[in-house]
Amino acid sequence: MTALFETAVRVGAASRTTIDTPALVLDLDRFEHNVATMARFCRDAGLALRPHAKTHKSSTVARRQIAAGAIGIACATIEEAEVMVAAGLPGVLLTSPLVSDGKIARLAALLRQAADVMVVADDAGNVARLDAAAARIGRRLGVLVDLDLGQKRVGVPGIAEGVALARAIAAADNLRFAGVQTYAGHLQHVAGHAERAAATRAALDSARALVAALGEAGLPPAIVTGGGTGTFRIDARGGDDETGEGAWTSPLTELQPGSYVVMDAEYADIQFAQDADWPFVPALTVQVTVISTHVPGQVTTDGGSKAFSLDGPVPRIVGPLAGGAYAFAGDEYGRVGLPPGVAPPPLGSRIECIVPHCDPTIALYDEMVVVRGDAVVAVWPIDARGRRALPRVPPLR
Amino acid sequence: MTALFETAVRVGAASRTTIDTPALVLDLDRFEHNVATMARFCRDAGLALRPHAKTHKSSTVARRQIAAGAIGIACATIEEAEVMVAAGLPGVLLTSPLVSDGKIARLAALLRQAADVMVVADDAGNVARLDAAAARIGRRLGVLVDLDLGQKRVGVPGIAEGVALARAIAAADNLRFAGVQTYAGHLQHVAGHAERAAATRAALDSARALVAALGEAGLPPAIVTGGGTGTFRIDARGGDDETGEGAWTSPLTELQPGSYVVMDAEYADIQFAQDADWPFVPALTVQVTVISTHVPGQVTTDGGSKAFSLDGPVPRIVGPLAGGAYAFAGDEYGRVGLPPGVAPPPLGSRIECIVPHCDPTIALYDEMVVVRGDAVVAVWPIDARGRRALPRVPPLR
Repeated sequence: MTALFETAVRVGAASRTTIDTPALVLDLDRFEHNVATMARFCRDAGLALRPHAKTHKSSTVARRQIAAGAIGIACATIEEAEVMVAAGLPGVLLTSPLVSDGKIARLAALLRQAADVMVVADDAGNVARLDAAAARIGRRLGVLVDLDLGQKRVGVPGIAEGVALARAIAAADNLRFAGVQTYAGHLQHVAGHAERAAATRAALDSARALVAALGEAGLPPAIVTGGGTGTFRIDARGGDDETGEGAWTSPLTELQPGSYVVMDAEYADIQFAQDADWPFVPALTVQVTVISTHVPGQVTTDGGSKAFSLDGPVPRIVGPLAGGAYAFAGDEYGRVGLPPGVAPPPLGSRIECIVPHCDPTIALYDEMVVVRGDAVVAVWPIDARGRRALPRVPPLR
Repeated sequence: MTALFETAVRVGAASRTTIDTPALVLDLDRFEHNVATMARFCRDAGLALRPHAKTHKSSTVARRQIAAGAIGIACATIEEAEVMVAAGLPGVLLTSPLVSDGKIARLAALLRQAADVMVVADDAGNVARLDAAAARIGRRLGVLVDLDLGQKRVGVPGIAEGVALARAIAAADNLRFAGVQTYAGHLQHVAGHAERAAATRAALDSARALVAALGEAGLPPAIVTGGGTGTFRIDARGGDDETGEGAWTSPLTELQPGSYVVMDAEYADIQFAQDADWPFVPALTVQVTVISTHVPGQVTTDGGSKAFSLDGPVPRIVGPLAGGAYAFAGDEYGRVGLPPGVAPPPLGSRIECIVPHCDPTIALYDEMVVVRGDAVVAVWPIDARGRRALPRVPPLR
C-alpha cells in the first residue's frame, strides 16, 4: 500500500509535529538501543535470539533484528511468515499450530521458497497432515513439539505426550524433529522479579524434564525455544547462584522475545517499578491531536478505540501534559483530563502517549512513522498486519 | 492491496469452510435485508439517509447503501472520506472536526475533486482556517455547526455558541453554512426503548432550540443531521402521538446511522431483548478455527485480541457450539469453554461468532469474506481502514 517512491516523497518535508494523527511514532534512537541491548544480552548469555514478529509485524524491524545478530524470526501467523520469507529473512519459525488445509498449503508453499521454515505442533493428526503436505513439495519440514507450561492454551500437556509426538515427527518421512517450544505467556507480566523468577523456573523445569526424556528416547532436541521480554533474564539463567537463589540452569537454547523492541505501558508498570536495572526503554508512542476544547477541565483528541488497543493500561501521556488522564470516548475520540492548574492546550496541539499494549496497538496501523528527535526519517510499513482470509495459493491436490 | 483480478481467482474455489481464519464473514442476504430496511424506513419517514462509513470503512458497502437510496456517506476520518470520494460516491460529510494543517490540506484536495464534500466545526478559529484553505482552492466549502448533545466530546456547548459559529461560517467568503450536526453517541446503547426515547428527546430538544434560534438569526439550517442505529425510530419521529408519549417532532432532516448495516452483540443485547419488532439482523461474524484440543472442557481457537475488538461483550458463538463461552487467551488465541455435555469439536473445526462491537472489529481486517449460505461470493476490501500518518498531498502554500 505504501510504495517506496511515495514514502520518500512524503518523508521529505515532514517533522514530528506535522504528522497526520492518530499515528504510531517510533523513536529510532530508543528502538536501536533496545535491538542492540537484547542482541548483546543473548550473545553474552550464549543463547540464540529469534525475536517474535507478532509484536511489530514489520519486515523492516525484523531485518534490523537479524542485522544485529538474531538467527531468525518467530511468527504467530502464516501472514507474518509469508511477509518475512518474501523479505528474504532467514529462520522463520511458526509458533502456533497450523491445522486447516488452507494454512498447511500456504506453509508448504513457504517451504518451497525457504527450506529453513519450521512450525510447532501439539497433535499427532496434525503432524501426519504436515508430513503429507511436505511430501507433495518434496522437502523436509522442521517441526517442533510445543509444550504447555501451564497456560492451558496450546501445547502437549505433559512429558509422555511430548515424547510420543517427537517420535511421530521423527518417524515421518518428510518431517524433521527440530526441537521443543515452551512459551509461558502467562508469566511475562507477573509482578515482582522474585515471584516471576520462581514461577518461570517452576514452569521451565517441565521443559527440562521433557528435554531429558527426549534425550533418553534418543531424540535430543537441537532447539529449545521460548522466553519472553518479561522473563528474559530468568529464561537465560545459566548454572550459577549469583542471585542467592541457588544454582539453576535454564533448558532454553534460544529466546523469542517480542515486546522488548518497543516496550509499552503494561511492561513499564511492572518492570520500571521493580527491576532497578531494566535495560529496555519505551520507543513507541501514539500521537493524537487536540480536536475540541469546549469542555472545562478536559480536551478531546482524535484517538479512541481504533487508535489504541484496549487490553492494557490506559495510554500514558508523555511530554507537557504528562500526568493528564487519558480516557476513551468512543472509537474515534479520546478525552484528556487536565492535571489541576494546567491550562488546556490549544486546538491542534499534539499529545504523545506510550502505547498501552504494544502488539495489538501496532496491529491497528499500516505504518510506523520513524523519528530521530523531531525529524521524520522514515515510514516503515507494518507489512505483516493484514488478515487475508482466502489463500493466495491454490490448495495442493 | 486486493487487486480485483486476484480476488476473482481467490473466490473461485472457496466455500465458507475453506476460509483462512480468523476472518470477517459477511452474510450477504442479511446485509441486503439491513440495507433495504433502513433505506425504506427513511423513505417512509421523509428523511434523508447518510449512513456512516466509520462502521464498515468499505467503499463497496457504501456504494450499495447509495444504490439503495442514501444521499451520501458520513465519514469519521479524512482517510474514509478520501476513499469514498475516490470511489465516486456523492455527499461525503466529515463528522469530526479537522484541525491540523495536514488534514485541512487533504480536505481542500478533496474539495477540488468533489464540490459537495462537507465538514463539521465547533470552533471559530478552525472555521477561519477552513475558509483560508477553501480560498486557495477557489471553491466554497459547506460547513455544519456541530452541537454537543451532552456527550461532552465535540460540538459547541450551547445555542448562543452555535448561532455565533453559524454566523462566522456564513460570513466567511469561501464557506457555506450547510446546517447542524447533533449526534448523541452516548444514548445509542441506553437499555430500554422508553428510557432511550426520553433521553433522546431531551437531547434533541437542544437541537430544535438551535434550529429555531438559527431561523430567527436568518440562518435556517438546510441540513440537520444526526441519529444512530440505537435511536433511529426516535430520531425520526414526526408530529404524532401514536406511542401515547405525546406529540413530538424530531428536528432532524437526515439520519447517519452506521451499525444497522451489520449489527453486533452489543446492540443485540439491548435491542433483541427489548424492542420486539427490531428490524435489523446480525450479518457479520468472525470465523475462527479450533487449533488445540488438549485441555479438558475447552478448545483453543486462533482468534484473540487481534481478531476481535475488546470494547463490547465477548464474541457470541453461533451454530453448533452456541452457548459455549468465548474468552480471550492473548493476542492470537481464544478459549471456548464447552457447554456441559458437549463433546469437543475436532481440530480444524470452524466456529463463527457475532462480533462484539462492529466498528472497531471491522477496522482490524483488510477484507470481508462475503457469503451466501456456504458459498463465498466475493471479497470486499475494507479499503478505508488504513491509517496514513503523513499527508499524501503536499501542504498547500
